[in-house]
Amino acid sequence: MARAEDVSDYIIAPVPADPRLTRVVEGVDQTGAASRISVVEERPLTIFLNGQEIVTAMTIGDYPEYLALGFLRNQGMLREDDEVTGVDHDDELETVVVRTARQTSYEDKLKKKTRTSGCAVGTVFGDMMEGLEEVRLPATPLRTSWLYELAGRINRTPSLYLEAGAIHGTVLCRENRPLVYMEDVGRHNAVDKIAGWMLSEKEAPGDKILYTTGRLTSEMVIKTALMGIPALASRSGFTGWGVEIAREVGLTLIGRMRGQRFVCLSGEERLLRDVDPDTVPVEDSKHRRKGARA
Amino acid sequence: MARAEDVSDYIIAPVPADPRLTRVVEGVDQTGAASRISVVEERPLTIFLNGQEIVTAMTIGDYPEYLALGFLRNQGMLREDDEVTGVDHDDELETVVVRTARQTSYEDKLKKKTRTSGCAVGTVFGDMMEGLEEVRLPATPLRTSWLYELAGRINRTPSLYLEAGAIHGTVLCRENRPLVYMEDVGRHNAVDKIAGWMLSEKEAPGDKILYTTGRLTSEMVIKTALMGIPALASRSGFTGWGVEIAREVGLTLIGRMRGQRFVCLSGEERLLRDVDPDTVPVEDSKHRRKGARA
Repeated sequence: MARAEDVSDYIIAPVPADPRLTRVVEGVDQTGAASRISVVEERPLTIFLNGQEIVTAMTIGDYPEYLALGFLRNQGMLREDDEVTGVDHDDELETVVVRTARQTSYEDKLKKKTRTSGCAVGTVFGDMMEGLEEVRLPATPLRTSWLYELAGRINRTPSLYLEAGAIHGTVLCRENRPLVYMEDVGRHNAVDKIAGWMLSEKEAPGDKILYTTGRLTSEMVIKTALMGIPALASRSGFTGWGVEIAREVGLTLIGRMRGQRFVCLSGEERLLRDVDPDTVPVEDSKHRRKGARA
Repeated sequence: MARAEDVSDYIIAPVPADPRLTRVVEGVDQTGAASRISVVEERPLTIFLNGQEIVTAMTIGDYPEYLALGFLRNQGMLREDDEVTGVDHDDELETVVVRTARQTSYEDKLKKKTRTSGCAVGTVFGDMMEGLEEVRLPATPLRTSWLYELAGRINRTPSLYLEAGAIHGTVLCRENRPLVYMEDVGRHNAVDKIAGWMLSEKEAPGDKILYTTGRLTSEMVIKTALMGIPALASRSGFTGWGVEIAREVGLTLIGRMRGQRFVCLSGEERLLRDVDPDTVPVEDSKHRRKGARA
């Protein structure tokens, strides 16, 4: 396996050694030999907004406060200008209660549910495209040298994926630097945890790049656009509607990133091709399989 | 690429050539060259049960009637003994209305939502574990020769995955024979389409095997168990809770199937090891990457 990446300049890096996130399970392999493998945990977390139960998410369980804040923000239930007066996580009850100065009620919105696609799947309450028509993303230039460096560093970063598989990663980056690397059994959770972190840190989105291990579905593109992030890159593929929306909102969309290969389906004019792809090393087999368990 | 599999003995096989399921999108590759790639479609389908709007699913759009029936059945909103008096799909309105002799109302159930994990993600209304306590699956023997043959045949079967990627497959099998191969942007949809087909055909589950390209999360295990299918196999990994539930209900759970390799984490006593793994060919690279775009 490739040398492990130094994570000292991440703001948040995965902690694959955290005993609460994985467990060792006894099994038997194809030869009939006993086999002990590490699998990720999956536990419920019920999110409340003030007095109202909003949803129960299945999650690995790290950063519950960021998950709750980001989920509510990405659902439009928490407004940019909302004053958050409290975020209380109860580990035993498996709940997070987010409190705001503004009185909130989303009874009607909660009635309309959209079950979104694939690995980005989650539940979107109300209209999935809500708020999207105002979104016009900044035309932030994107250097291909950053993309290659980010992909390489992220693949070499010790993670729950490399430890146990069956998990998705989403990484908030700026230029060639990965800043916040979140993982979860549901990739929508990983994205929401990043949104929650950005909200808490009042981090500006305009100069950021979002990298994900999963597919570029409509939900992933919409979430990224609503977060105000102008570039989304993935090793995985596209859906037709995801591409369509990316082009409408001016999101730079890069997919099928493998070693030196990638395809840009939106925002080509913002790509700065400052490196010769032939100088980019081919992925080693460990990473060529990345996502295969996802 | 490996020789394409003969699909004549499938009851339902993928139709990758169906023009409604994919579109060609113009992009630019890493060298700056124009690149035309095929991507899967993703469209909304709103499911009604009698007078009530239940959910809007994002789907590739094939077999809408099976998707609606299977979704409602897997949600416990359609009972085994329910008389279905009509299933009306409106292509323009993107709706399916399922009608039953019994009057139905799930207002309260619809209030409680669980956003489940990863690729198997979907929305579960009411209690996710509902109905599981009565489930005890038959101890149907599972030959490892069947598993290897199924994995090989399914990997060689022409599919939207091989055509466009970014899609999940779930295959209903009996012994060494794949019967019904469904694909969708959301793997939960692929499983629901199979459940809908089984319901329509009154197909008995006790002798079946479910093969999936995605992860063995709690939702996938629960759906399989509620469908009464005693064996679930995947090329992907596990979650802790998925393994726990499989052991409780007596589901044979096989994961990380790659070429000759696999791990059995539940139901080992039902596995008949009738083939020497060393005689199983290693996957070619095309299939070694399978799932990587998922």
